[in-house]
Amino acid sequence: MSILRGNAIVAQSGGPTAVINASACGVIQEAMKHKAIGKVFAAHNGILGVLEDTIFDLGAEDRRAIEGLKVSPASALGSCRHKLKRKEDFERILEVFKKHNIRYFFYIGGNDSMDTADKVNNLAAETGWEMVAMGVPKTIDNDLAETDHCPGYGSVIKYLATMTMEAGRDTEAMYTTDTVNIIEAMGRNAGWIAAGTALAKRNEEDAPHMILLPETPFDNDRFLSGVQEWIKRIGRCVVVVSEGVKNPDKSYLSEMKGAFGRDSFGHAQLGGAAQFLQSAVEAQIGVKARFAMPSTIQRTGIHFASLTDSREAYLAGCTAVRLALKGENGKMVTLIRADTKRYRCITGTAPLAAVANGEKPFPREWIGSDGFSVTDDFIAYALPLIQGEVKPRMKNGLPEFVRFKKNYV
Amino acid sequence: MSILRGNAIVAQSGGPTAVINASACGVIQEAMKHKAIGKVFAAHNGILGVLEDTIFDLGAEDRRAIEGLKVSPASALGSCRHKLKRKEDFERILEVFKKHNIRYFFYIGGNDSMDTADKVNNLAAETGWEMVAMGVPKTIDNDLAETDHCPGYGSVIKYLATMTMEAGRDTEAMYTTDTVNIIEAMGRNAGWIAAGTALAKRNEEDAPHMILLPETPFDNDRFLSGVQEWIKRIGRCVVVVSEGVKNPDKSYLSEMKGAFGRDSFGHAQLGGAAQFLQSAVEAQIGVKARFAMPSTIQRTGIHFASLTDSREAYLAGCTAVRLALKGENGKMVTLIRADTKRYRCITGTAPLAAVANGEKPFPREWIGSDGFSVTDDFIAYALPLIQGEVKPRMKNGLPEFVRFKKNYV
Repeated sequence: MSILRGNAIVAQSGGPTAVINASACGVIQEAMKHKAIGKVFAAHNGILGVLEDTIFDLGAEDRRAIEGLKVSPASALGSCRHKLKRKEDFERILEVFKKHNIRYFFYIGGNDSMDTADKVNNLAAETGWEMVAMGVPKTIDNDLAETDHCPGYGSVIKYLATMTMEAGRDTEAMYTTDTVNIIEAMGRNAGWIAAGTALAKRNEEDAPHMILLPETPFDNDRFLSGVQEWIKRIGRCVVVVSEGVKNPDKSYLSEMKGAFGRDSFGHAQLGGAAQFLQSAVEAQIGVKARFAMPSTIQRTGIHFASLTDSREAYLAGCTAVRLALKGENGKMVTLIRADTKRYRCITGTAPLAAVANGEKPFPREWIGSDGFSVTDDFIAYALPLIQGEVKPRMKNGLPEFVRFKKNYV
Repeated sequence: MSILRGNAIVAQSGGPTAVINASACGVIQEAMKHKAIGKVFAAHNGILGVLEDTIFDLGAEDRRAIEGLKVSPASALGSCRHKLKRKEDFERILEVFKKHNIRYFFYIGGNDSMDTADKVNNLAAETGWEMVAMGVPKTIDNDLAETDHCPGYGSVIKYLATMTMEAGRDTEAMYTTDTVNIIEAMGRNAGWIAAGTALAKRNEEDAPHMILLPETPFDNDRFLSGVQEWIKRIGRCVVVVSEGVKNPDKSYLSEMKGAFGRDSFGHAQLGGAAQFLQSAVEAQIGVKARFAMPSTIQRTGIHFASLTDSREAYLAGCTAVRLALKGENGKMVTLIRADTKRYRCITGTAPLAAVANGEKPFPREWIGSDGFSVTDDFIAYALPLIQGEVKPRMKNGLPEFVRFKKNYV
């Protein structure tokens, strides 16, 4: 087998995470080690940057900035939610790849991104442009098929569980006036993130007292009586609600209406579940409730991100490059929990198409019998993913993040 | 002067902070050093705990738990928002003090708490119960009179500025779909907290791009054209809005109505300013906007609290005890910025009544001429307050907080 020679491009897609830049760092640093790879480019704003030919040379960036990706949140290369639909778009991608002699395409993202990478790669094969496309998994939602867990997930649950602990102590102090607190978790239609806040609970008194998952249809009476029971037992109740919780008729608890109610993939934009429940508690139980909506803050918390997650994100990026140079193609790197007593994460691969078309729902058997808790099996699954803390670079009391110069080629 | 001998009580009041427990720790550890003080009690839930005689003996608590107050957020003694109004309530307080031979009363709180402490103390003097009442300042809002700054403030702005940096990078990555992000800051009618997020901005590209303070009446046209200018300049806009921003007619931008719209002091409960602005941006500019409402999460972030703030909170607690034993009475400990080139914080005192009846508005001269920024003088004021990080005790990847056994006496 002769090694394919040419330039490489890396791009990031979809919602940012605390550690997606660690994956980019892995791709970039590994790619720069190999002679078969000439230049290492970045597409600004994911696939949009390829379409628009806004591509910059990572070789022109400071090596310290590249290393700093490990401690910088969100997508330093820029991201997008852009679904390629027209055949001309895919042809345009290949045209740009040819222009810059791009033979290696590393796409860091979720299932929509894997779909895009797969389709570009297939068109390249059909039309005779020799190239390799490899995917690097990324999503806070943890719902990608074929991988034990997703880079980004460990950090979001570590941070959101910490927020829940801290805000939980606030409610514990203030329960005589602010009796109920409702925190809204991201995660779309999968309960992985909301479930992860259960890590905050070390004994009965600790928050969260109730977790509402999208996998359990909302039942107003059961919710309210659950809250009332907690108030009776310990004087307060902290609830974590997933943004994707649905009514029995499959409508979202509180769906955002209007022109911006759907993203370009047609997914409903969610928000307001916590506020909805706050009103329900105040009106129907008659105690004061607060709510918090950390929104994108939860997914970019590098200042308290999981070191395990960050290292695995970096590993996934490096591995994608190494495998590409060993002849793998059309695959996403997966994370595998090695069958060892102590947690150990190794890598594998899955076809891009399998990830694109699959999903990994939160297992029903990990939902507690009351419908508002998770089982010990879930805790055993999640706990290793939040170990250790990323230490950001600090300057004048605040973190310091990198930003690329972006010399467009 | 003969030293007053008897027991001491410490209580916490009002909204929690990341470091109010550090002040309690200072009071408790210092009080336990002095022979004139017999037992050191805590009132559970502030003055309510005195009224209801739910008082526990801190001497029965593990010394490691007391030390752990320094790294535990919110009010470990319990807090309340309870305004004493009736003369019988004040008499009841003294009755409970007499029952437990309480001669030293240390109240950690804001101006309402200083008012309570002052009134209890005055009634004691009138009725011949010899005692000392000392106040320890606490408020994230930083609006207490007589003190340069308030314990709790440095931590809330360090954390909220970090959130703004991180969420700002999210918007920077996603601006092609999520162009505007609006983060709601606490702070009631004072802009101190929202202003503090300006520390996140190191250059033009950095968030926050606009800060809306309660001191500047809201002007819809100026706001929208400001956002549009930023979008034109850098493609995005991150806004920090204070919950207390008001319309020119003095009504809040978005006031919570209904039965729980006011707390027991009659203060309006605020919320929803960010959501209001999100709707305005989407409807009137036609780009997608997100909003975040970290709510109580922002004030309890011990995992990234300011070490400077924590140490000053502890110092204020210790100092209250030391001064009480030196014969001071009816005073609140204040923080003074020593007239030195490098930041140095020393303590002073102010009469409880002066704090109770005063306030410290955000200085108008520290608001930028555009109405959406702050001046370098404010930055110079705030920057020393956020230096260093508190390191929480960690257990299994998450912080570990203390909780007292509470042996009621």
